[in-house]
Amino acid sequence: MLPLNENLSTMTLSGIRRFTSLAAQTPGCISLALGEPDFPTPEPIQAAAKAALEENLTHYAPNRGLPELCREISRYETGLGYDCTPNQVIVTAGATEALYVALMGVVNPGDEVIVPTPAYPLYRSILTAAGAVMVSMPTREDGFQLTKERLSACITEKTRAILLNSPNNPTGAVYTRESLEAVASLVSGKPIWVVWDGVYNQLSEGTVPELAPFRDLREQLLLCRSFSKPYAMTGWRLGYLMGPEQAMERLLLLHAALVAAMPTFLQKAAVTALHTDVSDMVESYTRRRAYVCQRLDEMGLSYPKPEGAFYIYPEIASFGLSDEEFCTRLIQEAGVALVPGSCFEDKGHVRLSCCCSQSALETGLDRLEAFLKAL
Amino acid sequence: MLPLNENLSTMTLSGIRRFTSLAAQTPGCISLALGEPDFPTPEPIQAAAKAALEENLTHYAPNRGLPELCREISRYETGLGYDCTPNQVIVTAGATEALYVALMGVVNPGDEVIVPTPAYPLYRSILTAAGAVMVSMPTREDGFQLTKERLSACITEKTRAILLNSPNNPTGAVYTRESLEAVASLVSGKPIWVVWDGVYNQLSEGTVPELAPFRDLREQLLLCRSFSKPYAMTGWRLGYLMGPEQAMERLLLLHAALVAAMPTFLQKAAVTALHTDVSDMVESYTRRRAYVCQRLDEMGLSYPKPEGAFYIYPEIASFGLSDEEFCTRLIQEAGVALVPGSCFEDKGHVRLSCCCSQSALETGLDRLEAFLKAL
Repeated sequence: MLPLNENLSTMTLSGIRRFTSLAAQTPGCISLALGEPDFPTPEPIQAAAKAALEENLTHYAPNRGLPELCREISRYETGLGYDCTPNQVIVTAGATEALYVALMGVVNPGDEVIVPTPAYPLYRSILTAAGAVMVSMPTREDGFQLTKERLSACITEKTRAILLNSPNNPTGAVYTRESLEAVASLVSGKPIWVVWDGVYNQLSEGTVPELAPFRDLREQLLLCRSFSKPYAMTGWRLGYLMGPEQAMERLLLLHAALVAAMPTFLQKAAVTALHTDVSDMVESYTRRRAYVCQRLDEMGLSYPKPEGAFYIYPEIASFGLSDEEFCTRLIQEAGVALVPGSCFEDKGHVRLSCCCSQSALETGLDRLEAFLKAL
Repeated sequence: MLPLNENLSTMTLSGIRRFTSLAAQTPGCISLALGEPDFPTPEPIQAAAKAALEENLTHYAPNRGLPELCREISRYETGLGYDCTPNQVIVTAGATEALYVALMGVVNPGDEVIVPTPAYPLYRSILTAAGAVMVSMPTREDGFQLTKERLSACITEKTRAILLNSPNNPTGAVYTRESLEAVASLVSGKPIWVVWDGVYNQLSEGTVPELAPFRDLREQLLLCRSFSKPYAMTGWRLGYLMGPEQAMERLLLLHAALVAAMPTFLQKAAVTALHTDVSDMVESYTRRRAYVCQRLDEMGLSYPKPEGAFYIYPEIASFGLSDEEFCTRLIQEAGVALVPGSCFEDKGHVRLSCCCSQSALETGLDRLEAFLKAL
């Protein structure tokens, strides 16, 4: 093979895949491994896409996104306190491209980016592609929250960004106001970007503390969101990046060189999404989460309190198996798929997703319970 | 503003934009500047997207693309002589992302990529983002074809790729078999990738010579195509990258970190596109091209023979104006928009696009003729 970009040589497939593949190959296995809404996209959103097709909105959209969608997004974010103008928005191919543009756009090779762990594996992939150094900051001993002590120990001359995710994948934890204060007090006014992966903000029981109140951070904040999770639109690949206008002008050039623009008629559907009531789905996740917690409590498993997203992250270290062994045997011996913490650069925990029917959840948890008893 | 990736500081907006903006601001201006089919997407393709939505194909697709689409693409490329398997294909966000993945995926900072000019401005944007050096190879003196002499003069120790585009934007020229032989004889077996931007291959009067017959090049060939131009699907953002299987396995990791995957239900429409007869649209471009050539002949303008795409590239140097001045005055004084060659790193020529109705073409050419007479 001819030589490739050297950064690619250390990129790897997400470990999550290995476990979902193993589950798929195991007849009758129930998967509680998938981080994707099980609901179809709500009908009004689908109808908006079809109507836009009928209007022949099949030509290029502006690089930044349809003006109408950028306006609606800025209105939505302003509602969350970000005082955002449409020129601060770029419509992206899901939060994936938003994160890629944000990270690739701010780092130079060798720069350091601090990432609290456990963390979604995409972060390391993007940072590796960008030739940046991911500085892992374990949060397990701090109850999966952020502390000034641990964060300041990670900051060096080379720190270019810190990447935060709340509600968190895989823990389901939501960063407290105190965690955010720790970040703001340490990085405000420093040449350090704060990249905020806020894709689960709508899938929360209470209000998710945002960085909006920390006005001193505004000029260094890059916010990534997605239509995928709140609106069950994973397969549409729509999200957005929001940041200071001057920086967004330059990041727009990178976005244009990556993908040009997002599909035009899908953007009309995204406008409809922002006006669609998804409280039914949110309530389902909340009910499922409560059910899972009750069952895990009965099994004597401990876990950080899940307050958002659709994940629960129980500890399994006490069973004397590594998280990888635990998950492999759980699939093979009990027919239930979870994701080991090692896939998120952690250990001793497993991620359980509530993205399945109540009956699958019940059967899956019955099987988990029997597996634990037999261990 | 906080520091950004240094590569972004030298990226610029496409010059094409400045002229389309000026045209848009000029009341009554006829634009012959747009490189985008004026037709809506054919109805069967739209219907396939709607049907896929009705089947709720709204969840994640595999990173590589829907297996059904990868199979159809490999069948199509095999029909062109490339003997391609589905594992050699990645479905991308248009040819834009295919080119980004191909170029970012093979260069390291400082590597050189040879690009025959005039050239589509996206190439420089991507190479700048990747920190690579674009080595321009002017083709004007060689009738917009490739010669062994000129190409070998550009190859150095640092050459990592050569980027070819046929049928060509902006010239409309198609590389001859001899041009391709010049490339193959110089780079076969060398550690130099050949990135082939073949987005206009279906929009040609005759058969477009492909690199398929040069079997020695197979392991170093990365082929980029798009659904945008042949199927009037610019606003759908669908294309693909094809290359040697081993390299594609690694480039897939980059694609996954960029955009995850393409919209699921749109990929079903792309399958339908590959079975859709678009000869009506192709014949329209052929008729329009013939009409434009006849009119330019009558005006005494010379141009490389356009054999594909939907561009004609007349020389205007003899009028004593720079191409930028020519196009600016043409918009302001005559109400017709063309694109100056300088937007493609060339000069003394202007690009005329046939992506408009016959009546717009007639009026536009009448105005051009009057403008030239008055000069």
